[in-house]
Amino acid sequence: MTNYRTEHDFLGEKQIPENSYFGVQTLRAQENFNITGIPLSAYPVFIKAFGYVKKAAALANRDLGVLDAKKAEAISYACDRLIAGEFVDQFITDMIQGGAGTSTNMNANEVIANVGLEFLGYSKGDYQHLHPNNDVNMSQSTNDAYPTALQIATFLKMEDFAESLQSLQKAFYEKGQEFKSVLKMGRTQLQDAVPMTLGQEFNAISTTLGDDIHKIRSAENLIIEVNMGATAIGTGVNAPEGYAELCVKYLADISKVPVVLAPDLIEATVDMGAFVQISAALKRSAIKLSKICNDLRLLSSGPRCGLNEINLPPLQPGSSIMPGKVNPVIPEVVNQTCFYVIGADLTISLAAEAGQLQLNVMEPVIAFSLFTSLEYMMRACKTLEEKCVKGITANAEHTKQQVMKSIGIVTQLNPILGYELCSDIAKEALESGKSIHDIVVIERELISQSKWDEIYSLENLINPKFIAS
Amino acid sequence: MTNYRTEHDFLGEKQIPENSYFGVQTLRAQENFNITGIPLSAYPVFIKAFGYVKKAAALANRDLGVLDAKKAEAISYACDRLIAGEFVDQFITDMIQGGAGTSTNMNANEVIANVGLEFLGYSKGDYQHLHPNNDVNMSQSTNDAYPTALQIATFLKMEDFAESLQSLQKAFYEKGQEFKSVLKMGRTQLQDAVPMTLGQEFNAISTTLGDDIHKIRSAENLIIEVNMGATAIGTGVNAPEGYAELCVKYLADISKVPVVLAPDLIEATVDMGAFVQISAALKRSAIKLSKICNDLRLLSSGPRCGLNEINLPPLQPGSSIMPGKVNPVIPEVVNQTCFYVIGADLTISLAAEAGQLQLNVMEPVIAFSLFTSLEYMMRACKTLEEKCVKGITANAEHTKQQVMKSIGIVTQLNPILGYELCSDIAKEALESGKSIHDIVVIERELISQSKWDEIYSLENLINPKFIAS
Amino acid sequence: MTNYRTEHDFLGEKQIPENSYFGVQTLRAQENFNITGIPLSAYPVFIKAFGYVKKAAALANRDLGVLDAKKAEAISYACDRLIAGEFVDQFITDMIQGGAGTSTNMNANEVIANVGLEFLGYSKGDYQHLHPNNDVNMSQSTNDAYPTALQIATFLKMEDFAESLQSLQKAFYEKGQEFKSVLKMGRTQLQDAVPMTLGQEFNAISTTLGDDIHKIRSAENLIIEVNMGATAIGTGVNAPEGYAELCVKYLADISKVPVVLAPDLIEATVDMGAFVQISAALKRSAIKLSKICNDLRLLSSGPRCGLNEINLPPLQPGSSIMPGKVNPVIPEVVNQTCFYVIGADLTISLAAEAGQLQLNVMEPVIAFSLFTSLEYMMRACKTLEEKCVKGITANAEHTKQQVMKSIGIVTQLNPILGYELCSDIAKEALESGKSIHDIVVIERELISQSKWDEIYSLENLINPKFIAS
Amino acid sequence: MTNYRTEHDFLGEKQIPENSYFGVQTLRAQENFNITGIPLSAYPVFIKAFGYVKKAAALANRDLGVLDAKKAEAISYACDRLIAGEFVDQFITDMIQGGAGTSTNMNANEVIANVGLEFLGYSKGDYQHLHPNNDVNMSQSTNDAYPTALQIATFLKMEDFAESLQSLQKAFYEKGQEFKSVLKMGRTQLQDAVPMTLGQEFNAISTTLGDDIHKIRSAENLIIEVNMGATAIGTGVNAPEGYAELCVKYLADISKVPVVLAPDLIEATVDMGAFVQISAALKRSAIKLSKICNDLRLLSSGPRCGLNEINLPPLQPGSSIMPGKVNPVIPEVVNQTCFYVIGADLTISLAAEAGQLQLNVMEPVIAFSLFTSLEYMMRACKTLEEKCVKGITANAEHTKQQVMKSIGIVTQLNPILGYELCSDIAKEALESGKSIHDIVVIERELISQSKWDEIYSLENLINPKFIAS
Repeated sequence: MTNYRTEHDFLGEKQIPENSYFGVQTLRAQENFNITGIPLSAYPVFIKAFGYVKKAAALANRDLGVLDAKKAEAISYACDRLIAGEFVDQFITDMIQGGAGTSTNMNANEVIANVGLEFLGYSKGDYQHLHPNNDVNMSQSTNDAYPTALQIATFLKMEDFAESLQSLQKAFYEKGQEFKSVLKMGRTQLQDAVPMTLGQEFNAISTTLGDDIHKIRSAENLIIEVNMGATAIGTGVNAPEGYAELCVKYLADISKVPVVLAPDLIEATVDMGAFVQISAALKRSAIKLSKICNDLRLLSSGPRCGLNEINLPPLQPGSSIMPGKVNPVIPEVVNQTCFYVIGADLTISLAAEAGQLQLNVMEPVIAFSLFTSLEYMMRACKTLEEKCVKGITANAEHTKQQVMKSIGIVTQLNPILGYELCSDIAKEALESGKSIHDIVVIERELISQSKWDEIYSLENLINPKFIAS
Repeated sequence: MTNYRTEHDFLGEKQIPENSYFGVQTLRAQENFNITGIPLSAYPVFIKAFGYVKKAAALANRDLGVLDAKKAEAISYACDRLIAGEFVDQFITDMIQGGAGTSTNMNANEVIANVGLEFLGYSKGDYQHLHPNNDVNMSQSTNDAYPTALQIATFLKMEDFAESLQSLQKAFYEKGQEFKSVLKMGRTQLQDAVPMTLGQEFNAISTTLGDDIHKIRSAENLIIEVNMGATAIGTGVNAPEGYAELCVKYLADISKVPVVLAPDLIEATVDMGAFVQISAALKRSAIKLSKICNDLRLLSSGPRCGLNEINLPPLQPGSSIMPGKVNPVIPEVVNQTCFYVIGADLTISLAAEAGQLQLNVMEPVIAFSLFTSLEYMMRACKTLEEKCVKGITANAEHTKQQVMKSIGIVTQLNPILGYELCSDIAKEALESGKSIHDIVVIERELISQSKWDEIYSLENLINPKFIAS
Repeated sequence: MTNYRTEHDFLGEKQIPENSYFGVQTLRAQENFNITGIPLSAYPVFIKAFGYVKKAAALANRDLGVLDAKKAEAISYACDRLIAGEFVDQFITDMIQGGAGTSTNMNANEVIANVGLEFLGYSKGDYQHLHPNNDVNMSQSTNDAYPTALQIATFLKMEDFAESLQSLQKAFYEKGQEFKSVLKMGRTQLQDAVPMTLGQEFNAISTTLGDDIHKIRSAENLIIEVNMGATAIGTGVNAPEGYAELCVKYLADISKVPVVLAPDLIEATVDMGAFVQISAALKRSAIKLSKICNDLRLLSSGPRCGLNEINLPPLQPGSSIMPGKVNPVIPEVVNQTCFYVIGADLTISLAAEAGQLQLNVMEPVIAFSLFTSLEYMMRACKTLEEKCVKGITANAEHTKQQVMKSIGIVTQLNPILGYELCSDIAKEALESGKSIHDIVVIERELISQSKWDEIYSLENLINPKFIAS
Repeated sequence: MTNYRTEHDFLGEKQIPENSYFGVQTLRAQENFNITGIPLSAYPVFIKAFGYVKKAAALANRDLGVLDAKKAEAISYACDRLIAGEFVDQFITDMIQGGAGTSTNMNANEVIANVGLEFLGYSKGDYQHLHPNNDVNMSQSTNDAYPTALQIATFLKMEDFAESLQSLQKAFYEKGQEFKSVLKMGRTQLQDAVPMTLGQEFNAISTTLGDDIHKIRSAENLIIEVNMGATAIGTGVNAPEGYAELCVKYLADISKVPVVLAPDLIEATVDMGAFVQISAALKRSAIKLSKICNDLRLLSSGPRCGLNEINLPPLQPGSSIMPGKVNPVIPEVVNQTCFYVIGADLTISLAAEAGQLQLNVMEPVIAFSLFTSLEYMMRACKTLEEKCVKGITANAEHTKQQVMKSIGIVTQLNPILGYELCSDIAKEALESGKSIHDIVVIERELISQSKWDEIYSLENLINPKFIAS
């Protein structure tokens, strides 16, 4: 049988299960918000971030003489346990909620108060000795504590994402090395263009991901300006002098995230620009990754009626009806993840635009969208790396034959024969089905066989030298 | 200790926990796809829909003599149990997956085969007596079974959503009746315009939602054309003659969803237009609902420095720092849900555009986005109705006073005094702070007091008659 | 030397060029709004629609005795000239404007008043005889006249778009007939699947466009409910009794657009749901068209290192460096148009969500986005039809050879040999490079040559019969 | 009568008007692409950028000995005239085009060739002396020249945009100074929160725009890596050794844009990540600007039934029916511009994702969307600054009264009385209509009048000190 304790707020009393560390306001939130079914506990890093924030605030309050040392110790103790990953299951509030995160903040305040109360030898709910609002939330408001915790959690998740990107980049780079002598046709507008190597193609993917890692890491710096000390709207009402600076200093020390104090706390309290930009960086990654996966699917199309340049590792029977069919399931699932992320970026944009006057009340859906996007993207990168890229093999013989029978290689003759004559040769090849070699060397005798061999050596096809007539 | 049975497919063998009804391909899918962490079991209606589809196929196959009656009976039996909501926990595949839903289809095929095997007295995995591909998937492909099940599940979820909209509409309608004598200022461009009643305002919301219910119900008809019998690409390879028609007839009977056979199965197999349109209908609802919530927040702004026309029921302390503050948390959470839905609509659009040649491989993310949007919206409507609309009260005295002191009521004098003179009166009122009454009746003596009383009676303000000079 | 006349409004006086039919408020609008540089005159159908609206209002006002017959005649005369396409250059206001379209409405009111004044024998600007507000705008507000004109113009533009879609559909249908015996490989997930004909593929495009035409035509009905008579906010203030019904009746007669009166004028004045839905229908078309163009580009990829199934007509040298290269420039430009339309749909969604209380002030950007999308899409369809589809040719010999050497054709043997054995055959073919025929008929002797010939006849590949063992 | 000259390419001959500087390929493009009706000439900065690119290429080619000095001089001469703004009307190609910009590049090549031919004393079209492809396009491809010119033009347009933002920021900053003593109620969630000054509110806008200017300027650096020398696909085929480096050096010198050579030309030729990010920066600005305009409209709502804190300068009569109504038309038009930009960002994302293999063929719609967004935003900023912000006035007396009668000021008492007692006071105030002062000082005698005066002095309300009990 569950025992209950009674808690109250200015709306009245509620019965709280005895063993619960959350309190009356968390319970109200659970009753009020039931949209996604995804509770805060799904994102432990967010809870950890609240541990950092609340501890930093308590230490600053203590140093400034407004919080009793014993209470500060109890709060710190509770926060340390949150940071260590404990009490995650006490964070039951739905990720999407009204109130600009007040319910999340109060969930944290209540859990910390109750853990602290037990540390001090009191019962849960005996808030006269440690109060969720007066003590744990001292010198704070949801409007500074919530976005600050969100920024710290985002920073940490971005770092994880950057690492998964880096690992994926390495896999592409290694394939680039492996395929550096695989000659193949480059294509523009899906039309045969000029030769290149498969190594160059995979290297370019590695380059583009490398650039992205750099951009993601730069974007991390966009969210290090926090607004602790802003309290309700940025004027710092109810916070002691010097609190903002001291709190942020503690926060940087404790969390190891290089947070600094925002220069204009009123602006910082309402502006969502940093989240918009971070989401845009994620969208950029998604767009790149989607293009890469589209290419992997194109290059592995076939096996007999497609480009068939590469083989993706077979992971599962591809069809419930077509025997032997193996599908590019990993690039496909990554494409879909990218579409999710691009959609979530729109959600974040809408939420950011909906801020009004001194607050943006839509922060929770920004948190939800950012966290899911970062989590899904991280998993997509790992999946792509481990279940696909590492096992890719090349059909080198096939791709080389394609190059030599192509019309596109006439481009190499431009500097010698001029664009117009080359156009004429290309046209004849297309209409007659003949090879460029046959038209140029044998039929029209425009260049000698030895010149041909010089121009069309593997070496020169891969690394074209400028060869004049 | 868990016991295992061995299953194999053309990629090799796997150990399956003895008590699992899924098989080797489901296990591979679980290993391959780990993006959202949200399994098929989160959407039981989808599993139910597969029950309908597989049963209809089995009965059609039996009638056409290609499936043994005993096997058909076993499949039907298994499907009935799925339809009844059993075995939901056996659907472990992640909602977002590569392979265009092959893993979902095989998860269904395997569970049905194993439930059927036990019915027939065999062990799970003894597929020679009832085979996931040869029997359960007979005359089918993922490319017809998956979208058909998705359409049926969507149809059923839309019906639920329409009901929640209807209930919400009713709540607004009742408030419209309640407020029909509450005079208030109408506003265009946030500027005072002309008088109206709060009842008219809530009625208009009821009207707009009523229109939406109608649109949602129309949209349901967009997904009743199914492509059963298409098999791999719509040519119907491997399906016996007459199968498509018979299967769809059974499907309509069993599911009570009025499905019909698509006229061009090749087109039907690749086209995602219906899902795009359904998602657009949802987006339309989200846009309306968001505008409604924005208005509720505006109208309840204050209490002393805002419009303060209505009061939303207080649900939780509104602030961790500002005592007594009560926030419009329910409209806020609904706004955020709407932003989610609009983002999800973009995801669906991207996925729909990414179809290639004979298939759209991005169907799983379409399913995921549609299901989450429908679920979230349904919950948002219920929350808004029960926790907000039903408890709204009006500040009738305040709103009436606002009307009478407004400048906008000069508009009523246009037909009598002309636009230019009225403009001049308005200008004087604005600059001097005087009331329209004082300028028109007392100062300039443009109309008599009795005429004024006629024009500005409550009756005429609410239901303006055309009064000429 | 330009002569000027003086006009004034309640903000003061302005000099208007003597020969201009617009007046003071249009001039203010021109000074205030300078964003796109695209004036109303770019969309003559919008001006025509205002002609219909203002004429209908004048006739209704006349019949109800509130407008002098002579004035009504003058307004009708002026409107007829607008409807005939005259005075387009007098509509100088930028398409995107503040004020919810007030400037557009006043531009129309002023031009009509001045054309009417000349008809009555007065000078332009002599508004005591025919006033832009008191007479031309009588019983109206921007908030009913503007959206009504927008709906009528959209209806007419959609009809044009539907016709261009129909013409495009016909072109695809004819190609479908032309290619009905061209055997080719069907592909799912870009992997070889089972055979089909190119005719079926083009037919499916025709089917999908046909469905779209139907959807576009249905969508037209979404905008026939107009709110004439709503005046400022839908309460009908300043409009005589019976005006709304009579005006709408005239409007339907004059414009031949089957408009009806909206049942709830307060709702109709603020709701943008219909435009959201129409834009969604356009987006749906764009998504389909984009997928079609992606396919055309895939199918024509090559010529020697791609799928090379079809040839698009060459329209221009494809490269400034690669001689003889011909690119799929028309599908490419259509893809880009589709991306524009999808972006514009987002703009419309944002604008629709931004309505507040009794009005959506963002209507002008909705008008702008809808008109550009409809215009661009119409042109894209025509371009695609005339410059691409009509000239497409097939490489029938090549595609047939691809089918016969494919592995995918093993699917046809499923009903005879079972899925598992077929998987094994497919695997051997893939690894050895052998053909299915060689393995099945010669090597393993699983079926006879005559059975093979029956199954793999052109007839059966195109229209598969169910052939049991 | 127009005279014509004959030109040809490998598709055949065309008649070109004698006085036209463009040639056969431009004419084909004009016939092929007719979507937006907006020609290249609408964006002179793009044409200027081509002048820079083609001149740099010619000088590099000359230095490396592959281009005749006389020809190089002629090309340089022609480019200088383009840079000076001449021949803009010769750029007739539609902004949205297939072929990845080939038509734009050829339009530039042909105009430059013909201007150069006249400089050399030859007739237009006499290409044996100066050839659009062989000479003007030497060592180049559309695939490097087009994106490079696009990057330079974007850089220059962004600089213009940044300047307009800066000017707007200054206007807000000055208003912030002007309003620094205007006490008003801060609002969170549209509910009365705690006091602040109107100066702080405008200052915060200035801060947020300042941050944006910084972000826009950082974003400029994203597009300085150019791929000149890549030629067709990044392998540099047909370009002499050392060309890439030399060309880029010249380009930086001539254009004064600090371009550098991209490290991986294959990656640089296909990747659109930089444009995605720049568009995201623009979207961020749009989101901020939209939120600012929403606030301006809220704060100026009324005059008598709204917040009425500020007055926007009246620019035009606000209504065709409501006399004296003045609307926030400038913020409204800016909101709409922002919606356009957010939609255009989606277009760019879609286009960027659609790259395939070695090229992104959708670059022209990226160019179109970026240029329109930058142009519109720049104009919107200027309009907002000049026609709105500079003329804003405050209703200081009204806003001060609102603060003193508010309940939110009880927050100031939290540190003295505690959150729970303050909640109780707030509740009584709300229910009874009493002021906080009356309850706290007179009725309950919780603090003395002198303490009240200390806490609620203007000084302390604006700059809250922490006042303990």
